[in-house]
Parts: sequence; C-alpha cells; structure tokens
Amino acid sequence: AKTLEDILKEKGVITEADYKEVTKSKPFTYKPGSGFTLTSPDERFLLSIGGRLQARYSFTDLEDNSASSDSSKWEAKRIKLWLKGYAYTKDLSYLFQVDFANSGSSKMLEHAYLNYRLLDEIQLLAGQTKVPFGRQWLNSSGAQQFVDRSTASDMFRPGYDTGVKLHGDLFKGAATYEFGVYGGAGQSTVRSSNDNAIAARLTVNPFGPLSYSEGDLDRSAKPLLSLGGNYYRNTLNKTAATTLETNAITLAGSTGWLGKGLGTFATSEKIDVDTFGLDAAFKWLGASAQAEYLLGQADGQSSGKTLRAHGFYAQAGYCIVPKTVEVAFRYSYVDPNRDASGDLQTDTQGAISWYINKHNLKLQGDVTDSHKQNGGKASTDDMQYRLQAQIIF
Amino acid sequence: AKTLEDILKEKGVITEADYKEVTKSKPFTYKPGSGFTLTSPDERFLLSIGGRLQARYSFTDLEDNSASSDSSKWEAKRIKLWLKGYAYTKDLSYLFQVDFANSGSSKMLEHAYLNYRLLDEIQLLAGQTKVPFGRQWLNSSGAQQFVDRSTASDMFRPGYDTGVKLHGDLFKGAATYEFGVYGGAGQSTVRSSNDNAIAARLTVNPFGPLSYSEGDLDRSAKPLLSLGGNYYRNTLNKTAATTLETNAITLAGSTGWLGKGLGTFATSEKIDVDTFGLDAAFKWLGASAQAEYLLGQADGQSSGKTLRAHGFYAQAGYCIVPKTVEVAFRYSYVDPNRDASGDLQTDTQGAISWYINKHNLKLQGDVTDSHKQNGGKASTDDMQYRLQAQIIF
Amino acid sequence: AKTLEDILKEKGVITEADYKEVTKSKPFTYKPGSGFTLTSPDERFLLSIGGRLQARYSFTDLEDNSASSDSSKWEAKRIKLWLKGYAYTKDLSYLFQVDFANSGSSKMLEHAYLNYRLLDEIQLLAGQTKVPFGRQWLNSSGAQQFVDRSTASDMFRPGYDTGVKLHGDLFKGAATYEFGVYGGAGQSTVRSSNDNAIAARLTVNPFGPLSYSEGDLDRSAKPLLSLGGNYYRNTLNKTAATTLETNAITLAGSTGWLGKGLGTFATSEKIDVDTFGLDAAFKWLGASAQAEYLLGQADGQSSGKTLRAHGFYAQAGYCIVPKTVEVAFRYSYVDPNRDASGDLQTDTQGAISWYINKHNLKLQGDVTDSHKQNGGKASTDDMQYRLQAQIIF
Repeated sequence: AKTLEDILKEKGVITEADYKEVTKSKPFTYKPGSGFTLTSPDERFLLSIGGRLQARYSFTDLEDNSASSDSSKWEAKRIKLWLKGYAYTKDLSYLFQVDFANSGSSKMLEHAYLNYRLLDEIQLLAGQTKVPFGRQWLNSSGAQQFVDRSTASDMFRPGYDTGVKLHGDLFKGAATYEFGVYGGAGQSTVRSSNDNAIAARLTVNPFGPLSYSEGDLDRSAKPLLSLGGNYYRNTLNKTAATTLETNAITLAGSTGWLGKGLGTFATSEKIDVDTFGLDAAFKWLGASAQAEYLLGQADGQSSGKTLRAHGFYAQAGYCIVPKTVEVAFRYSYVDPNRDASGDLQTDTQGAISWYINKHNLKLQGDVTDSHKQNGGKASTDDMQYRLQAQIIF
Repeated sequence: AKTLEDILKEKGVITEADYKEVTKSKPFTYKPGSGFTLTSPDERFLLSIGGRLQARYSFTDLEDNSASSDSSKWEAKRIKLWLKGYAYTKDLSYLFQVDFANSGSSKMLEHAYLNYRLLDEIQLLAGQTKVPFGRQWLNSSGAQQFVDRSTASDMFRPGYDTGVKLHGDLFKGAATYEFGVYGGAGQSTVRSSNDNAIAARLTVNPFGPLSYSEGDLDRSAKPLLSLGGNYYRNTLNKTAATTLETNAITLAGSTGWLGKGLGTFATSEKIDVDTFGLDAAFKWLGASAQAEYLLGQADGQSSGKTLRAHGFYAQAGYCIVPKTVEVAFRYSYVDPNRDASGDLQTDTQGAISWYINKHNLKLQGDVTDSHKQNGGKASTDDMQYRLQAQIIF
Repeated sequence: AKTLEDILKEKGVITEADYKEVTKSKPFTYKPGSGFTLTSPDERFLLSIGGRLQARYSFTDLEDNSASSDSSKWEAKRIKLWLKGYAYTKDLSYLFQVDFANSGSSKMLEHAYLNYRLLDEIQLLAGQTKVPFGRQWLNSSGAQQFVDRSTASDMFRPGYDTGVKLHGDLFKGAATYEFGVYGGAGQSTVRSSNDNAIAARLTVNPFGPLSYSEGDLDRSAKPLLSLGGNYYRNTLNKTAATTLETNAITLAGSTGWLGKGLGTFATSEKIDVDTFGLDAAFKWLGASAQAEYLLGQADGQSSGKTLRAHGFYAQAGYCIVPKTVEVAFRYSYVDPNRDASGDLQTDTQGAISWYINKHNLKLQGDVTDSHKQNGGKASTDDMQYRLQAQIIF
C-alpha cells in the first residue's frame, strides 16, 4: 500500500528531497531475522524485538542390544526471545536473549550484555554471552545446515559465561580477534573462588568477511574463506567424587569430555583445563564446507594426573536448488579420553534443508548413524531421524 | 485527537481515496484482548504484544475437624505475557505465551507453536499448546464466568503438550475438528520412550460459530449452540510406587484422577489411559449454559488392573445488567475411582462478575462449598471465598 | 531529521495549530529510564517496554584467617525487563517486571500489579510489589549511589510480597502514605495459613516531593528533605529446627536478622515479628545525604522467647563534577541479636560514580571494609572492590 509520504510526493506537495529526508529514518521497521525494530526520533535509541521457534520431531532407533528403549520425541526445542539494540549512541549496543525452552532452569538466560564500540577495531563487551571458542558453537543454532550441532562441537565447547571481552574487526573484516576474561563457572553461575577463565579467538578471512552462518544461501559469486583458531583455559575444583564446583561449563558437564573423564582426578583437587581449536569455513556458488579440530587437556594440580581428549567434524553442503534446497553431509569423531580404549563416538550424518526464507523460515530433516564403542562390549550403531521447522519472527 | 491524515483530507490536500489508501493498514494499532500490534509496511509480518494479570484473594474456611488450617491467600495468580502474530504470510501464524506466575518452573512456558493455514479447513500446527480435550480446559482461564475452572475440568484434562495437530473450521465454522499427536509427557517435558499420545476433538455449531468464552457478554440476538466430543489416549510407565514417568500430564498428576488412583497398578508396568468427553454450550440474550461429562479409564498392561473415573459439571449464568453484571451457578461432581467408595467430591458454586470491559477488565467473586467424602470418616464441607481482578492489556 | 509534519508546516500546508494537534500525542516515543512507549490512537492505552542491565565485577579479599577463599566474580547482576503502562483509562496502570538474573527461580518475578487511581490521594494497588518498608529498599537498585544497597537495608527488609495496598500523595506530594495487607509468605510464595502481614509507611516532604533516587543528580536549587517512618508486622511458623514456613521474606531468610537468630525459638511455634524504621533523605546543590534506623523484634508465641535486632546506615555524596561525577561515603551498622555478643557487622564504604546519563547510563566503583565480629574469635576485616556498568534502555 502507498504511504502518505508517497502520495504527497506524487502530488508535488513535498519534493523528492523532502521525501528522502522524512523516509530516511523510519520510527518503525521490520527486518527478517531481527524482528520488529523501533527507533527513537533522535536516532539515539533502537530496540528490536524478535524470537525464534524450533519445533522438532526425533525418532531414535537404538541398536537392539541397548539397555534403553527407542524414543519418539516431540519438542519445542528452542523458544528464544530477544531484545537488542543500542542506547544513547549507536556505539553502545546491548542484547538480552532468553530461551523459554529452558523455563525453570537458570539456563533460560543466554545473552545479557552491553558492548561499547570505540572503533570497529576496538570494542569492549561486558556481561554474559557465548565464550569465543569453537566456530560451530559461535554459529547460531538457528543458522545450521543440520538440525543441530555436531557431537564434537557439543563435547568441547565451554558454553555461555559472564565476563568482559575485548574484540574487533581488523582490516575491514579480513581478520577478527576476541580476547575475554570470564568468571569460569559458566552460564548464569557465579564463581566463588578466584580461578577465572580466559578465552581467545582469531579468524582470518582472506577474501573478505564470512559471517557465522552455515550453507552458502547467498550463492557467493566469489569464493569466501575463513580460518580460525582459539584457546580456552580454566581451573575447576573437583568437589566430590563425580562433581566439579560447577556443572555449567558444557565441556565439564555430563556430556562433555571433561565431565565424562572426571574419575581420572582426586576429589578436592583443582584441575587445570586447556582447550585448543582450529577451524575453517568455505563458501562458493552454493557449495559450503566447514571443519574443526578440537583438543582438550586437563591436569590435576595435586594428583599430577592428566586427561586428554580430541575430536573433529567436517561437513559439506550444496544447494541443489540455488538458495533454497540444500543437501549436506557430516562426519564427527570424538575420543573423550585418548588414554582409554573403547570410548570413541563417530557420527555419520546426512541432511536435506528447504530454506523458504533462508534460515529465517526453513524445514530440515537429517539422519544420523551414531557409532559408539562400549568399552569391552560390542559397539552399537544408533540411528536417529529428525525433522524440524524453524521460524524467526 | 486528529491525525495528520485527517487534516490533510479536510484541507483537500489528499483525496478521500488517498485517505482510505494510507489509513487502510496502520503500522501500529491497539486491540483490547490482544495488546499492541505492529504490522510491517508490506503487511507480511504482524506482532502483537500483550499480557494478562489476575490478582486474587482466597479465604478457605475448612470444616472444623480438618487436619489443615484455614488459609488467607493473596496471589498474583496468572501473569501471562504473549507475543503472537504472523510472519512471511498471513497464513503462517505463531504464539509464544509464558506465565510468569510459574517463574522458576518449567510450567512457565505455555504456548510455543507455529500454525500453517492451507485453507481455513486444513491447518497444521506444530509445537507446544493445549491438548484439545475438554471444553472448559480449552476456554482461556481469562474468559471464565467463575474465578477459575471447575474441579471436574481440572481433574480430567491432559494439559499442555508438544506435538503436531491437524485442524480446521468446516462449513464456515458450523463444525470444527482437531486431531493431534503429542509426545505424551506433558508440558515442557520430553518423552524418553516411543509411547506417544493422541487426541481428537469435534464440535458442531448448528447456528454458527461459538467461540470458547464463557458468559453471553455480547447478548446474542439469536441462540448459539455448540456440541463437542473428544478423546485422548496415552500410555504411561509407572516407574515407582507412587510416580509415573512424568507428572506433567495434569490428569496423571497429584490432583488428577489417575494420579490419585496410582496405587491400583503395579510398579514398572505400563498403563494405557483412555479418556472421553462430551460437552455443550449455549448462549442467548445474556443467558449462557455449559456442561461437560468426562470419563477416564486406565488399564495396567501387566497387572490387568483397571481404574475407572468419571465426573461432570454444569453451569449457567445470566447478565442481570446486560453485557456488564452477571450471576452464575455451577455444580461439579467427580468420582476419581468408581470402584472405591467414599471418594466423591462435589462442589456447589455461585459467582458474580462485573465485566467493565468484557473479559478484558473485570472483577469477579465466587463462593464454593466443596463437599468431600473421606473414606470411612465423616464428610467435610469446606467453604472457599474468592475475589479476583483481571486486566488484559 | 525533519518529520513530515515539520515539512508540511514549513510549506504552510498545515497551520501551526494543526501541527500542535497532530504532534500532541505521538503513537510512539522513547523516554530514557522507561524505554520505548506505544500509545493507542485514543490515548486510553499505553505500553512501555524497557530493561536494565548491571554488569558487575567484584573482588573479595578475605582476612587471612578466614576459612573461605578470596573470590573474583563476574556477574550479569540484574537483567530486568518491564512492561508497564495503563489500560482502558490513565487511572488504571500496571507493571510487570522480571529479573532474568533469577532465571530458574521463582524470584524472577518481581512486580506484577495493577493500580487504580481514584484521586492522587486515594489509590489502590493489587498484586505483587515491594512491601513499603525501608527507604533504601524502596529506592530502585538502579538508582543507587553505591554499587548496591547497605547491609542494614538488606538485613531488615521484608522484600516483595503479594497483597493489596491503599496509598496516595497528599498535599501535592508534601506527604505520602501507604498501608498494605500482604500474604506474608513473601515473593512469589502463597500463604497456607491465615497469618497475613501488614505494612504501613508515611513520608513528609516539607519542601516538596523528593523521589526515591540517590544522589542529587539534578543539582536541586532549593533544599529538598524527606522524612519517613514505617512499620511491618508478620507472624511466621517455625516448621523445623532451622527453617520457617517460608524463606522468601528477606529478613527471615539466611541473610536476614530473623533468619540468623532462629535458634532462639522452639520448633513448631509461631513467631510474631514486628519491625520499625525511621529514615531521612536530603538533597541540595549536588550534595545528598540519607540515613535510616531499623529495629526488629520477634516473639515466640509458645516459648515466650524474644529476639531483638537493630541497625542503621548513613551515607552522603557530593557531585564533584555537577550532575556527572559523584563521590559518596557510607557507614552501616547491624546488631542482628542485641542479646548476644560478638555478632556485630559494620561496613565502611566509599564510592565514585560517573553518571553519563544520570542513573540510566553510569559506571560505579566502590570499596567496602566489612568488619565482622566472630563470637569469641578474632574479628575479621574483609575488603571488597566492585566495579559496575549500568544501562537502562
């Protein structure tokens, strides 16, 4: 429909210049992926309200000799709501994000930070956000080629934490850096000791910026490449036989490599954790590829014991209908304890995605064969079939 | 106040047709009951933000021989916030709704779904929402003739669950159908087995659509009638002496008929649950009536034991001041175990409501005599007095 | 940027009067401290959406002989989101406020009330909000001269509760009164007995209204003074050796004076709690001072035992750069059990604040020496250093 401005311009009541002036800044706009956006008349304040829903069905067909039973799950997997924008100046931005799928848990709160940009190259962020370690972890769960992240990424990521981060884009995005100091107790959890954590990440993007978003949905005319490396260090106190002082650091929780190998260490000793990662992503003409190698080592300060883990994943996709239908394949390998045998998990996955409006509105299905070693016993191959609809409004 | 469009039309700067064109779609409106609504310029995106508050006082005067004490309760009973609208097309709608009165519990999340309308007659919903079983359960707690629902409705409803539902309006609303498959573990709870639940509901509205909203606040000039029937089936594993695999299916929780009768079954057996309901609602000239009969049966797969329950309620109201002041009366009867004696609960209730702006702004008071049988002991009559203010903003 | 209204006025298409008419009520505005505000065309509905973030770092250096260890904490301390406004009439206002820093806890919900203003002098509020007891408690945690409230205020405040409050401004704000009846079980907690709580507060402001906001950031040309007095009474059942029926009344929780002295009373007895407070605040030419004396007494109904506590704080600040940079000093004293020796806590604090946009955007740092008596053992002096950034958007 025509706006009042359109009609007044047509009638010659206002000039072309007037039109440009008054329509330059709209108090109110909608942008797919961000949501409805309000801007104050003086343009010093902006607020976007948006959300994301993932409705998922998963059928898991366990190997026959498994002790557990098959499962048929319906989930409202992610129910995110965000308020983001800037205030007082465009250089002071903020993000609040909760995931109502975690209602009843402190994990409901994801992002709560403010960021000050002195220059594009020098920015300071304070509050809770993702710890900058791991390309796939930093890639939104709403912009994946598969229904969800790889097992390798899930096992090695620190998760969310609160702290302060110095970061910036160098050479117009040809490189980025992030260096942060965090409480080290993880998402929505406060440290009671002075053992804080640090994380650092560097990316190089020789052909220009490549954002964290899987799949080449824009069909890049020129090849895009991003290379990354990151490091994360923390010290965690093992307070009881099977628990650490916090279970909110993902890699130290029940599904993380450190959490699985806690038996290595003595109770009441402090454990130094060092993790490293190298990663790359590539996009060109609808094809995309991404891989990551992750390495973890934990050293007991008193016992002198060491736990070592590593893993990787590699995935590739191609849009068989440009910008719209993509097929993808992934292989993920994890060895949570390199000094133990019979504990490998390898996943082989295939996915097909229908991007109705890129990642904003899409249907995805994937199939996974999870091959798990079981110590001395026979390995199992569990099959999982997933279907997911996602909307960002 | 006059708008710029009004003034320009008066001055003849824009024509009547121009006026209609530019005011046809407002980027920003308010609608009582839905809240503030933002519409994108291209009309493909719409977001309504609104909320509902119930502030309630309840005094419960227990029969003198009761072991518990009287209570005087102040509650912010329901503190709902919703974001709803459509995105990409008017046919793709969504609803996020949380109840902050359940902060700290996974029950905070109520609705989180997206719905695609192929035709009015054929729609597909995916995500978490109310299981379509029970007229009073499907009627919003914000559109009741009493301060809250009947005991019969509370005891037999499944509650919220996640799944997928095929539904539609047939013959311009003269009939509606809903058929859904759900995880079966209930609100914000994921199933770990493959025993899913199904629900089906059909309504017939011979004189035209009759929405789920109690009381005839619109003073219908012609009589309106709705007849409904529904069925719900689930299979639940009894994992311990007094607990099921989930307590998030209302009828299987501590206040539901199945939850109360769990002792019937063996531990570790699976229980097949079948529930049926028939209901009717009528409105005419300020008078309204509604009734529902509910039936439940649970069968232990190993023990062969059976638990049978039934109940009903009937209520009627009349607006003694048209559209504004209503009196209502209700009788509710529940027999949670038809094979046991001394377990009936009957409630006799009277209510008076002052609808300042229909259900959007109202004051309600009700009195309940809860007559409870207590096995071999003397029955008790507990009196409850409630007063509630509700605002939808 | 110019608006369409500006241009049409300049061109003479609309008159000065027209301009005033159409710009009188904006559907959409931004006000620092409140957030983005939407107003319905008929001006009967208004909704403001805003939030507040505090990102804090605290280093606590414990006295060497302490059993605990020093701590280095990063916190997203307060992550508030509010929806507030009025509906149906300007006299019917509401406030929903949650603090996502308490995600996973029922304490996430703070305010949920509606308020009806018959006159400025006679208003009725129903729902959950702050119990009107204690000047510093009633002062938003976002409008403090220090990084957070004094220990005296923390130990004697009841906290949030649900109920109904009669209140008003008398003589154009020269006095205010509040009288409320509350459930008495505290924040987001429902009473199961009929022992409700009451609270009353009166302030006198001889030179005109003085709002609850610390520091004289407006550099008052004339002196402003506020004197206050308040009373709070509750009855709480001690249900076990170390617990009350509720732990959501702050003064009765683990850090409150009553919570610390529960050993005084017999298990299963009801405890009558009476608290009193007197307070004053003063502002002039950038200088501000505030003090509060708080007194608590608890009487066991069966044992006849009595627990008596008192405390106070006094603080003063001065803007060394008018409206922008302030230094402040505070002394807080608490004796949680006047009949026991060796339990005093005194805090000496200094703060410096940089108010970039008053309390809406500020950086604050403070240093605290907490001197604690430890029964017969040596006293300890713990030092705490805090730095905090706050943004209200």
